[in-house]
Amino acid sequence: MRGVLDIPAHLSGVQELLGDALVRVERAFDEQLESDLPPVNDLCRHIERYRGKMLRPSLAVLCGAAVRDDLSDALSARAFGAVATEAHVRAGAVCEMVHMATLVHDDVLDEAEIRRRGATVNALRGNELAVILGDYLISSAYELCSQFGTPVPARIVGRASTVMCAGELLQLHTRENASLDESTYFEILERKTAALIGASCELGAMCTLGFDQEDDDRVAAVGRYGRFLGIAFQIQDDLLDLTGEESVVGKSVRKDLEKGKLTFPLIHHLANAEPEARGRMLRLIRPPVSDESARLVRSALDATGSMTATRERAAALVESAKKALGVLPEGPGRDMLSLMADAVVARSH
Amino acid sequence: MRGVLDIPAHLSGVQELLGDALVRVERAFDEQLESDLPPVNDLCRHIERYRGKMLRPSLAVLCGAAVRDDLSDALSARAFGAVATEAHVRAGAVCEMVHMATLVHDDVLDEAEIRRRGATVNALRGNELAVILGDYLISSAYELCSQFGTPVPARIVGRASTVMCAGELLQLHTRENASLDESTYFEILERKTAALIGASCELGAMCTLGFDQEDDDRVAAVGRYGRFLGIAFQIQDDLLDLTGEESVVGKSVRKDLEKGKLTFPLIHHLANAEPEARGRMLRLIRPPVSDESARLVRSALDATGSMTATRERAAALVESAKKALGVLPEGPGRDMLSLMADAVVARSH
Repeated sequence: MRGVLDIPAHLSGVQELLGDALVRVERAFDEQLESDLPPVNDLCRHIERYRGKMLRPSLAVLCGAAVRDDLSDALSARAFGAVATEAHVRAGAVCEMVHMATLVHDDVLDEAEIRRRGATVNALRGNELAVILGDYLISSAYELCSQFGTPVPARIVGRASTVMCAGELLQLHTRENASLDESTYFEILERKTAALIGASCELGAMCTLGFDQEDDDRVAAVGRYGRFLGIAFQIQDDLLDLTGEESVVGKSVRKDLEKGKLTFPLIHHLANAEPEARGRMLRLIRPPVSDESARLVRSALDATGSMTATRERAAALVESAKKALGVLPEGPGRDMLSLMADAVVARSH
Repeated sequence: MRGVLDIPAHLSGVQELLGDALVRVERAFDEQLESDLPPVNDLCRHIERYRGKMLRPSLAVLCGAAVRDDLSDALSARAFGAVATEAHVRAGAVCEMVHMATLVHDDVLDEAEIRRRGATVNALRGNELAVILGDYLISSAYELCSQFGTPVPARIVGRASTVMCAGELLQLHTRENASLDESTYFEILERKTAALIGASCELGAMCTLGFDQEDDDRVAAVGRYGRFLGIAFQIQDDLLDLTGEESVVGKSVRKDLEKGKLTFPLIHHLANAEPEARGRMLRLIRPPVSDESARLVRSALDATGSMTATRERAAALVESAKKALGVLPEGPGRDMLSLMADAVVARSH
């Protein structure tokens, strides 16, 4: 994850290879979106700015490297040169494109005005354009995904996207439901965030091992890793939405409260607070939420230990993610994946 | 096209086979959308009501039949039984699902409240839900499309969807542009409507001939047929939006005017009217458009012969569509396709 990781010396070779691969992912991404219509290209240039951590392509490339038996150190990775084949690059671009589509549509849903420090498409050009632009991204992703010569990647990406949309629908359905429980919350996260991240990892591994190796232990392992990491990532996002500053996070904050979405810290609080404190919280989070209310929300969450519980839960998920990597061969690929899992909960944006 | 065609006796056998196939398309459609989440299923049941003419699945099935040399009459069609294989049914369901997704998203864009005589998803449940439901339909379509055992259908459908979205973006870009010319208008139609209809036809033909037969003359012919028919279909839609009654058309009318979309009759009028009449028209179509203004618009369009010119253009496109069928073997499949082309401009809904 670009700009988030502190890389130890023995992994700097892998980091460099990853950097090269991500440049190629960006190129594949842009080439796929290129249109013969100038207004379409103008729009696509706008969303280039959304490009942030490139989490999904990074995972696709690194999982592709980490499942190899013959990549024991950064030097051998370099000797291979082609750790990231055209297939890995394409898989990364497809997953990033699907993700970008959800960002554009999410911003419509959330009425968000800022994304990666720039104005959102919906704020700048209206919801209509943002809806169609998201559709353009999804279609382009599937078009790119059909270039693998096998329908397996399309099935995996299609399945992950369907699960993701079902998760969004479930989330909308449970909105403003003050009795939302932990298990439904995790169900939403598993679908909304974890499915596509897990798919990115699996695809990356299969680009190395072959698309007929869906049942390989290593494919299953990186899929599990990705899903744990995805849930931890989303919990961290939820924390940042509650506690972050817009200028640091780089996107609109406190949107969850404004849209009546209960996240882990609040669910924990409501389940553990005394009835009176619970009632007070439900009044505090009723939109619109003022700066003063947000401050009171945060101290109430501290009083029930809900912020700590949230951080602990995210940390436990990161441990599970790292544990899933156990079946992979030792080496810089696996170490880098482990490092990325740590970075997910350390990040402030 | 269900409920639109007047079928001559010698085609009743084909019609029956088509009816059977469409029932299977509906089943495949519903099975693919089936979710383990009850709120998702509730929503999908709502959009079942959107199912209307089933134009795209009908074309996929009929084009699949019409490219066969061995289907010279309805009797031999019946003898085959399997004119519509599982692949044809799947191709039909995929195209209908992509189309349905665009309907759901279009209703968000158009702020439409009525679709197929029922409330739209956006009117009933809000824009957010409609955006995600559309995404769920698109993803499900691609998931289904990956079951062909070859990535060719995914590439064709992905390409058609991308072109379609680019057409929508172009249309949004040209909105409220009073000098929109005929060629840009047709460019929009070719992308927005014709591409997916053409793809439905090509897919249907390839389900019969094989997915390695993309360059077959018959595949190209039905693709051309579908694109001409698609443009004619959209022109007829534009006419109905101007002249139709909501109770007959079954969806919100006069939405094009309200959203500042210039369609063929208006483009023709503005290009042919005297400057004074032109200025009057531009004032009349400025939203909101009252019933009285709509009446004046229609009589002004008659004065420049624009309604007649529109009908003639649609009829010419239908002739081109039928001409494209010339390379196909004679028989009930081809006759039925020809009849469907006629029905497109005869329809009042």
